[in-house]
Amino acid sequence: MADAAAWSLHPQLARATIDIGDLPLSRVFVFEDANYPWLLLVPRRDAVEIIDLDEVEQAQLMSEIARVAHALKTVTRCDKLNIAALGNVVPQLHVHIIARRHTDAAWPKPVWGEAPAQTHDPAELNLFISEVRQRIWLASDQPITFDGAGR
Amino acid sequence: MADAAAWSLHPQLARATIDIGDLPLSRVFVFEDANYPWLLLVPRRDAVEIIDLDEVEQAQLMSEIARVAHALKTVTRCDKLNIAALGNVVPQLHVHIIARRHTDAAWPKPVWGEAPAQTHDPAELNLFISEVRQRIWLASDQPITFDGAGR
Repeated sequence: MADAAAWSLHPQLARATIDIGDLPLSRVFVFEDANYPWLLLVPRRDAVEIIDLDEVEQAQLMSEIARVAHALKTVTRCDKLNIAALGNVVPQLHVHIIARRHTDAAWPKPVWGEAPAQTHDPAELNLFISEVRQRIWLASDQPITFDGAGR
Repeated sequence: MADAAAWSLHPQLARATIDIGDLPLSRVFVFEDANYPWLLLVPRRDAVEIIDLDEVEQAQLMSEIARVAHALKTVTRCDKLNIAALGNVVPQLHVHIIARRHTDAAWPKPVWGEAPAQTHDPAELNLFISEVRQRIWLASDQPITFDGAGR
């Protein structure tokens, strides 16, 4: 099993994201680019590749990917989901789950490196986080207040 | 469950790949671009998104991704794996599993749209397919002969 005790969030991921809560394996983040509704799953394990996780963790990661992808699709009614574990720049294992629209800044290309990141409107971002959290955790709505400096 | 009977390979995927065999859920392909050792998993289901698969199929897909990724890493000794389900151009669900090197044509960018596809050397391709198949299926070596026109 990949080591859980050794895990801490890579600073490059911390700088570009907002923490919206934990699933059993992964921490869930919003990526700070208003061009696309963009979530990130970071397994709380000292891992670079999906195959650094053991089989139970891999199955749990897929379950969490599906749960978050479903929530994102429901909230955004997007045209396509993009799901990817690349890690060429930041080596800590992280999975991108991105809602794509035929009209977005990069379509049909992948999003990475295409358009300069856009700042979120705080009210829109709070609403988005609230809706996503409600659907991921199936819990009563407990929105995180986004004050522009993370939580 | 996503419909298995309705499945047939999308012609755009057929044109760009070489079929190297079936896992329980997915057909495995080599993508025809010698810039990168590049495999593709296509679940034999009428699906666009991972979340179109049921939970059992999703777990099976993760198991097959890990199996193929492990084989690819062992064969290539690559620096990084890139694993992605995008589907912005070809809507049939397919998962890219790509071996990346710090010296490859696109590093550290994602591969899509970066460098013109390169033709494989037939002998190198046959060796690669043989080694990958041996590690995915853990079977005796039964190489597919690549004659330049798929099998």
